[in-house]
Amino acid sequence: MRSLEEIGMLAKKASVKLALLLQDEKNKALKACAAALIDMQDKILEANQEDVKRSRENGVKESLIDRLMLTPERIKAMADGLIEVSALPDPIGEVISMQLRPNGLTIGEKRVPLGVIGMIYESRPNVTADAFALCFKTGNAVILRGGSDAIKSNMAIVAALHKGLKEAGVTKDAVLLIEDTSREIANKMMRLDDYIDVLIPRGGAGLIGSVKENSSIPVIETGTGNCHIYVDEFADFDMALDIIDNAKTQRLGVCNTCESLVIHEKISKEFIPKLYQRLNAKGIEIRADERACAICSEFTPATEEDYATEYLDKIISLKVVDSIDEAILHINKYNTKHSDAIITKDYNNAMKFHNEIDAAAVYVNASTRFTDGNEFGFGAEIGISTQKLHARGPMGLKALTTTKYIIFGNGQIRQ
Amino acid sequence: MRSLEEIGMLAKKASVKLALLLQDEKNKALKACAAALIDMQDKILEANQEDVKRSRENGVKESLIDRLMLTPERIKAMADGLIEVSALPDPIGEVISMQLRPNGLTIGEKRVPLGVIGMIYESRPNVTADAFALCFKTGNAVILRGGSDAIKSNMAIVAALHKGLKEAGVTKDAVLLIEDTSREIANKMMRLDDYIDVLIPRGGAGLIGSVKENSSIPVIETGTGNCHIYVDEFADFDMALDIIDNAKTQRLGVCNTCESLVIHEKISKEFIPKLYQRLNAKGIEIRADERACAICSEFTPATEEDYATEYLDKIISLKVVDSIDEAILHINKYNTKHSDAIITKDYNNAMKFHNEIDAAAVYVNASTRFTDGNEFGFGAEIGISTQKLHARGPMGLKALTTTKYIIFGNGQIRQ
Repeated sequence: MRSLEEIGMLAKKASVKLALLLQDEKNKALKACAAALIDMQDKILEANQEDVKRSRENGVKESLIDRLMLTPERIKAMADGLIEVSALPDPIGEVISMQLRPNGLTIGEKRVPLGVIGMIYESRPNVTADAFALCFKTGNAVILRGGSDAIKSNMAIVAALHKGLKEAGVTKDAVLLIEDTSREIANKMMRLDDYIDVLIPRGGAGLIGSVKENSSIPVIETGTGNCHIYVDEFADFDMALDIIDNAKTQRLGVCNTCESLVIHEKISKEFIPKLYQRLNAKGIEIRADERACAICSEFTPATEEDYATEYLDKIISLKVVDSIDEAILHINKYNTKHSDAIITKDYNNAMKFHNEIDAAAVYVNASTRFTDGNEFGFGAEIGISTQKLHARGPMGLKALTTTKYIIFGNGQIRQ
Repeated sequence: MRSLEEIGMLAKKASVKLALLLQDEKNKALKACAAALIDMQDKILEANQEDVKRSRENGVKESLIDRLMLTPERIKAMADGLIEVSALPDPIGEVISMQLRPNGLTIGEKRVPLGVIGMIYESRPNVTADAFALCFKTGNAVILRGGSDAIKSNMAIVAALHKGLKEAGVTKDAVLLIEDTSREIANKMMRLDDYIDVLIPRGGAGLIGSVKENSSIPVIETGTGNCHIYVDEFADFDMALDIIDNAKTQRLGVCNTCESLVIHEKISKEFIPKLYQRLNAKGIEIRADERACAICSEFTPATEEDYATEYLDKIISLKVVDSIDEAILHINKYNTKHSDAIITKDYNNAMKFHNEIDAAAVYVNASTRFTDGNEFGFGAEIGISTQKLHARGPMGLKALTTTKYIIFGNGQIRQ
């Protein structure tokens, strides 16, 4: 097994070549990798069955087994994903701005790859192919560190990608898998700042917290979403019910799902019974403050902790407020800076919410479920950033690039 | 003395208000702060004299004493700096893009403040006023942690800024100084991620390394520059000599100074004696490889370490190479990703250098000394980023902002 240091060096070396690949060469390679995934489908399924068997023996929950399991359809979807990425416009080489300075220097700002991207993720093996495709399309080398449950599947998928790269005449070190899935190796990877330019963790709050805490490499934090919907005193009730229903129940386990409701006191008596009816029909438990519980005896009393919880489950918290200011204070206190929405017909309240909520995506009269690279028109998504540096919100291909200044002179010296 | 936690909370609270200040309000406050610096000049000078006296007693080098020392002229320059920042365009509120999606959602990307910025810096007290001005102009609160040598000066400067803010009716928690200058407090500050959104260290490699290593807050790395100039086989000799002279000798102690030369073998015999003459006249010692030493016996033999050194002194390293490819390999190995230049008349070599050098600023036929916010037309500079995330190269006001997506809907739910 290769050392981590060796993997870092190989990736760094590969990144120099990848940065210079033309769009046509990259797209050809992505298509070859897609074909290789289909070609090697049997081997991938076989490896995946080993992973599933071992995980079952280790007592892994069936919901996680489902995320781990591959089928011919899922492998086809992975291959289709590579082809979709090949069809996206390539951001590399774009000159974002170019100016002529008073002294005759021409200064341009050009989009270039980040270099080497490290990805640490959990059980889904499809992330292996996805992450490779996005990093490769943007001229980056990628070092992958997936979960132990999926290690055999990941090895088989990476072998297929290597076959595709080889056929396209591209260095296979464009994607390197760390086969040692111990926690020590993950921690060591987080200190590999000589070789890795950016680290992107994808997974639960525990993983992301550990990376944030330990990494000496710049990190892009993705993911946790304690998203709010505030029903203003001037809300259209039907719209509010439709949006809450969609934002809470369309998918329970994703980061842009609504986890907490805030209701204006003036409409609470009329709105809350309708809300209960709607969400109860979908099996959603509502944990609410005293005032709401007084209106609807079916609610469970909420604790302080409820307001801070991303349930990812059939539960939602609820608080009644006396003003939009109180709503904004509450949301900014408990949100994870991901996505929050107001439902209102009032112009000033809509603008105020847009201005004062601190989150990656702030909605007026729409479901928080739209926070997503595809819904935002980016064509692909490497994750949703909840930090403020570099990228905020859904990250498309541009989030995997940086810029460099290119300066054209004819002998200028500084006075 | 306030606890660090308390300072963090005050800054966070202030940042909410600062984000909503209008351009006119911010500019008025900056001018009031400039006036307050002049008003309180005597107190600032008195405090500074204490710092200077104590530092001399502690045996601080005279070159550092010079950086620490304030005069009425230097205080005037600080005040002028605040007024210059007030005159710059305000990036906050700019909507960078706005699109109408197929489902009728309008999605805009709006520039907003980062929130709370932490600055850790060394002896220069002028950084106190500068950093405040740039952070305040962009609607951020700032927590300052300056060096112990300058603590009394920093306290007096911050008192003047507080007076100006008060007169303008703005919360004085826009700028908070940590008065405890112990290393323990600096280390604790680096873990204050509940309150600080971004940490910017300004100082030597030791400080920056320690911040990078210990911070759980996202960091913008600034500074160290091991900048190269490559004299290609197709260089104009006079231009090369003028640019090298400027890039090495105009200012010795700054990060965009040239610290290493790379010379093509084909021109080495003719060019090196001219180079020696030019740099020797300015008192620059040249540490060179064997081939160059064989041409000029006055050179000192270079060690591996020389190529990796940012001298900030009257010394430069030199290496002879056989090709532009070797030059690029050498530069990418030893540079600090700051600024590197090629001197050439050859089109293909100029383009190759632009494409293949990995640095924040890559020059053709110009001095590396231009890597600077003012020279790039940004009007101000918070530092020069040598990392790839968020900002790369000279950082103007935009580097102190992030974006948020603002979404206008009329009832959209996700299908």
